[in-house]
Amino acid sequence: IDNDEMETFREKYLSMHPYDQALFFQEQQENIRQRIYTYLSPNETADFMEHIELEDIKPFITEMDPRFAAMVIGEMATDDAVDILNELEKEIVISLLTMMEKKDADEIKELLHYEEKTAGSIMTTEFVAVYQTKTVKDTMQFLKAEAPDAETIYYLYVIDEEKHLVGVVSLRDLIVAEGDVRIADLMNKNVFAVSVGKDQEDVSQVMRDYDFLALPVVDFQHHLLGIITFDDILDVMDEEASDDYSKLAGVTDTDRPQDGAFAAAKKRLPWLIILSFLGMLTASLINQFENTLSEVAVLAIFIPLIAGMSGNTGTQSLAVAVRGLATGSFSQQGKLKLILREATTGLITGIVCGAVITGVVYLWQSDIFLGLLVGLSIMTTLIVATLAGTLVPVFMHKFNIDPAVASGPFITTINDIISILIYFGLATTFMQFLK
Amino acid sequence: IDNDEMETFREKYLSMHPYDQALFFQEQQENIRQRIYTYLSPNETADFMEHIELEDIKPFITEMDPRFAAMVIGEMATDDAVDILNELEKEIVISLLTMMEKKDADEIKELLHYEEKTAGSIMTTEFVAVYQTKTVKDTMQFLKAEAPDAETIYYLYVIDEEKHLVGVVSLRDLIVAEGDVRIADLMNKNVFAVSVGKDQEDVSQVMRDYDFLALPVVDFQHHLLGIITFDDILDVMDEEASDDYSKLAGVTDTDRPQDGAFAAAKKRLPWLIILSFLGMLTASLINQFENTLSEVAVLAIFIPLIAGMSGNTGTQSLAVAVRGLATGSFSQQGKLKLILREATTGLITGIVCGAVITGVVYLWQSDIFLGLLVGLSIMTTLIVATLAGTLVPVFMHKFNIDPAVASGPFITTINDIISILIYFGLATTFMQFLK
Repeated sequence: IDNDEMETFREKYLSMHPYDQALFFQEQQENIRQRIYTYLSPNETADFMEHIELEDIKPFITEMDPRFAAMVIGEMATDDAVDILNELEKEIVISLLTMMEKKDADEIKELLHYEEKTAGSIMTTEFVAVYQTKTVKDTMQFLKAEAPDAETIYYLYVIDEEKHLVGVVSLRDLIVAEGDVRIADLMNKNVFAVSVGKDQEDVSQVMRDYDFLALPVVDFQHHLLGIITFDDILDVMDEEASDDYSKLAGVTDTDRPQDGAFAAAKKRLPWLIILSFLGMLTASLINQFENTLSEVAVLAIFIPLIAGMSGNTGTQSLAVAVRGLATGSFSQQGKLKLILREATTGLITGIVCGAVITGVVYLWQSDIFLGLLVGLSIMTTLIVATLAGTLVPVFMHKFNIDPAVASGPFITTINDIISILIYFGLATTFMQFLK
Repeated sequence: IDNDEMETFREKYLSMHPYDQALFFQEQQENIRQRIYTYLSPNETADFMEHIELEDIKPFITEMDPRFAAMVIGEMATDDAVDILNELEKEIVISLLTMMEKKDADEIKELLHYEEKTAGSIMTTEFVAVYQTKTVKDTMQFLKAEAPDAETIYYLYVIDEEKHLVGVVSLRDLIVAEGDVRIADLMNKNVFAVSVGKDQEDVSQVMRDYDFLALPVVDFQHHLLGIITFDDILDVMDEEASDDYSKLAGVTDTDRPQDGAFAAAKKRLPWLIILSFLGMLTASLINQFENTLSEVAVLAIFIPLIAGMSGNTGTQSLAVAVRGLATGSFSQQGKLKLILREATTGLITGIVCGAVITGVVYLWQSDIFLGLLVGLSIMTTLIVATLAGTLVPVFMHKFNIDPAVASGPFITTINDIISILIYFGLATTFMQFLK
């Protein structure tokens, strides 16, 4: 009976796509998962394990029999294996590596050395390399044997005797070519490669610009070390987009819906505490204008309006600048142009919003001077806040700080302070006109 | 001499990658560009034109001789051709289509019908379809002829006599298989396909989850219409990420650094005007508490602190919820869990920040009641604002509104209002304790 059950399970389970297998697997209780491990081969387990999110994989690896876990990881693409091992404690990694086949373990150990977020850390070593002296026919024969294990067979990297990368042949070219053509005559010698220490974000940009399905990674002597495939780039893109997004919202580390409340609070509190103190600074600034405020009490009611508008416009210009700095490589001239444009944009939005608000305040409070004061403050504030939203990230970029660190809340609070100074400064100067 | 120059140019230019050709091309003045058009074939021009950003391409197409432009567009992949035509005026599109080869024009016309941002609008019709009755050897022969024109040859879609999609064969499987195996026996019958009207964001999600290089598109009778390749998905991902990011910052449409100041102001003003009026509402709320404010004038100085903190925490929880709703498919239970988690996170951050602020205000103003009032307001505000940041997008999602519309500035302003109500409500209630 047990054997029958195993057969039925295997038939149904293995007919699903590995991604669906992973979804099903993650919904099961531990006792069911333990049975799944016994029903499947390490290779079959590795296939769907590669589709589980990295943050969730640790408990599954640690609940497996360590020998089985080592085999599963050994069967994975080396880059995925390395990603998983990076999630585990050092002692577990060492014990898993000793239980693995030596060849797999050696490949993985080499990749584990590369710094996080570099080309080396996301590349895989399962590529197809061919010698330039071979013919198309030989190469097709060779491919037949290599295809099942390689991460991609759609680009073949051509190497010389010392394993220097000398060219690339696409499978498409290989298929169209006659059998007796030599690889050296078919290959594209202008092969694009990235160095192993290159930042993953730059690698992702190159692959997207050039529409590469895969990109070879070389050391400083141009030896071929590995390849990066497009699926790795999708992960990098997701990561970077979430990262920029979280930073704009003022969450220090990427905050995931799956995290617990304490983990979430821990990630948010640093910002909130810093912002509390900046807020206290704003409060003490207003306190300096105590006299103005007590004489014209109505001023207080427009504080949130002015502070809010400056924060909002600052975040808008911040988003454009951060996004622009992150994706395009702004030239020096491009940055100046952006600053000028933001100044003009600030002027236009300032004049429009200032006029609207002057009108509304005048109609509401029947006090043209108060209307003009609030409107003029909004106008000045919008110009300054828009510029601040651009200047802060541009300067950070100049000093090699990731401009995305200048998050929305930070710019908002800076602009709060600027707007309060402008508002109460103007109010104090023109106090004789206010009732 | 002229001929020599042309040869030299062609040799240098065509040895570059099309992406680099596009960069070089865009840096030239119009007179140089006109010469480039005469030096290159329509096919060579199409190759690099596909690497120019859509927003920038219009002037290049319109400055070309219309016959040449029609040939260039005819040589492009149909999906890229359609994208470019969508950027041009209707009359120009019609005249270009009439000058094109009928076959190309017909394919393009069909794709032009599909609604924007659906699978149909991003798919290409240059796919390789094979009949299930063929053998591997026949198919490889067939591929040799088809390879130069197809967008991808790495997946072959298997159809029956009525062109229904019945399976898929990867080129990898084809290479590994023996020559006399029939496609019907080799193919994977569990072929994943999306319907032509499917939203491009969903398509992108499927391709990323399953790591597909290409995905077939079918009509409601499961006829194969086209394929979507991974490079189309990269564009969709970039678009969606920029979109979410811009919305969090409160820019209605994606605001690009290249736009002029007026275009930028036009995109930002709608939000700023709406927010002005919401800010006016906040002002009128504070006005309601005129008595409280005039009796305890010091209350005014903490308004920006409290409003700012509520805005910041709201944006933090908003970012997590929007990102979670956009990427993962939250179950009903998952949403409840998220709301509960945010309530707890709000409680924790509220208690911590509330305690810190009570202490600081007490030390500064030597008034324990004022300290308690401000601290208690911060605590309550943080809990409510954190919840609002989650509840608003969750409800929007429930009613099928894109939760990313609930931008940072919107949540910030809503939370301003809530925080002012809490602060002055508490102050009015406990006024007898304040000096």
